[in-house]
Amino acid sequence: MEPQKPPTFDDVAAASERLAGMAVRTPLIESDALNARVGGRVLIKPENLQRMGAFKFRGAYNAISRLSADQWPGGVAACSSGNHAGGVAEAARLCGLAATIVMPEDAPHIKLARTRGAGAEIITYDRHKDDREQIAADISSERSACYISPYDHPDIIAGQGTSGLELMRQAEELGVVPDCLLAPCGGGGLIAGLALAVKHLNPDIEVYAVEPEDFDDHARSLSSGERECNEVLSGSICDALLAPMPGELTFQVNSLLLSGALTVSDDEVRDAIRFAFNDLKLVLEPGGAVALAALLSGRLEVRDRTVALMLTGGNIDGDQFAGILAS
Amino acid sequence: MEPQKPPTFDDVAAASERLAGMAVRTPLIESDALNARVGGRVLIKPENLQRMGAFKFRGAYNAISRLSADQWPGGVAACSSGNHAGGVAEAARLCGLAATIVMPEDAPHIKLARTRGAGAEIITYDRHKDDREQIAADISSERSACYISPYDHPDIIAGQGTSGLELMRQAEELGVVPDCLLAPCGGGGLIAGLALAVKHLNPDIEVYAVEPEDFDDHARSLSSGERECNEVLSGSICDALLAPMPGELTFQVNSLLLSGALTVSDDEVRDAIRFAFNDLKLVLEPGGAVALAALLSGRLEVRDRTVALMLTGGNIDGDQFAGILAS
Repeated sequence: MEPQKPPTFDDVAAASERLAGMAVRTPLIESDALNARVGGRVLIKPENLQRMGAFKFRGAYNAISRLSADQWPGGVAACSSGNHAGGVAEAARLCGLAATIVMPEDAPHIKLARTRGAGAEIITYDRHKDDREQIAADISSERSACYISPYDHPDIIAGQGTSGLELMRQAEELGVVPDCLLAPCGGGGLIAGLALAVKHLNPDIEVYAVEPEDFDDHARSLSSGERECNEVLSGSICDALLAPMPGELTFQVNSLLLSGALTVSDDEVRDAIRFAFNDLKLVLEPGGAVALAALLSGRLEVRDRTVALMLTGGNIDGDQFAGILAS
Repeated sequence: MEPQKPPTFDDVAAASERLAGMAVRTPLIESDALNARVGGRVLIKPENLQRMGAFKFRGAYNAISRLSADQWPGGVAACSSGNHAGGVAEAARLCGLAATIVMPEDAPHIKLARTRGAGAEIITYDRHKDDREQIAADISSERSACYISPYDHPDIIAGQGTSGLELMRQAEELGVVPDCLLAPCGGGGLIAGLALAVKHLNPDIEVYAVEPEDFDDHARSLSSGERECNEVLSGSICDALLAPMPGELTFQVNSLLLSGALTVSDDEVRDAIRFAFNDLKLVLEPGGAVALAALLSGRLEVRDRTVALMLTGGNIDGDQFAGILAS
């Protein structure tokens, strides 16, 4: 691929046009229970209600709808822990392209089933031994398939950012201006797109990435100013947020626009999933619940403030969910 | 109480004004997975996202906000399997009134906890032996508390109907006109309010009540033209829908406006709860899932039609939910 530049707000706006009628315009909802719990006003953007159960469809469709089948006879290829896989598979199906997805063999069954259900071919790899990006790159080249990065591509970043554009428009309809935004962060594509969207519309808004403990590469990278790696590749229940380091393009955006990165433990994530079950009546997967976990754990002072909160995915297996409810 | 007349559309509209800023304006959402499954377009109104996790807050607040503390020094009293209890408790709290609620001793823990959490006093009864309405009537008279019927009062019916008014306005914003509406039915307060609201705005819309097997009093009453009783008082997982017979006022409305009543089995309800978990990412309690169950079970031909679907509550204990996911 050619060297790329990060997208701009205009790219997010263009992506939003492209996604109209294809992605779900997820609602902006409020919970008295959550507002009371944190002492502020929380505007919840439940992207678990998005097509395929996670925000990832946005970026995937934005990228894939721009490809031509003539140029890519093998369709698209991607590597993903699950939600990008589902998004790519569904977007490829809608665009009439084949999709080959490299997924970890221990991915949640629901993510494997959903990806397969959208017609993609799945190739599994061992999270501990194999280089998934290399496998996907080999497939792309062998099959003349376009590689769709999970986060480090301008079309992906811009696509994910459309959720932020929606959020700001929905807040405006309510006559509210968020003071800060919290969103889960793996490779940094979503948070970069969000930051581009929301800070263009309100430069004063503080944007925070939320990461699982031991996967705090953004927190450390923002401190050092360099892209830092995680020391481990697995070990958190947040299967969607285990990217090894910030993306190159995403970090160009995030190092400029983020106010910081917060970290939560797996136990705090389980608490958040239970809170969402009991009080929000939403199904969240671990990676989709980290921003809520940060809020509930008091990682950020939000008393009397208005907080935009991204809940990013709900693809969790029933047995894992049942286990969390029981714990 | 004085003999009452059923409410009109104007009462629903007035209730909507009263509830503005107090009740959640729940979103109208769509799921590609559900649309594909039934071959039609389903507009989902998730009232499990309502304050206290069920639509019941609407009617309770509409009724209670009209009371004066001077007239009712003992506040309010109610009997309820749980969601009306929570709605009444929360509405009373917001209006500065005491609340005494008669609840079955086997009510879900989350419903008991939520009601108690809103500051109500709870008196439990045995579903098989005690007459809950008599207990609540005695309390009302002893304490000078206003009895808040779970369904058979014009303010309750009108309040529940506000969800239908919202639904129609939201559908209009999307440029869609629903052909039919499916909603859960216990005593018939919600479905009566919905029918008043939606048929005023579109007389051609078909409105269907959905009941659990063995609690098909509305189906039989609509057939015979008289209010028929259920033969049993318990035995379905749909704890919210076990009212013994149609209300007097509600049946005056429902016998005129409903197109029919559909029946679903507990297994079909469990399937619907799992579908909502996997594909909608919403937490539903059994009683809140019966309309979805009817749709998924093909009780009504909806191919190429637009269906408004009420999901009415999500207050289910974690262990019961886990059991349903595992079954």
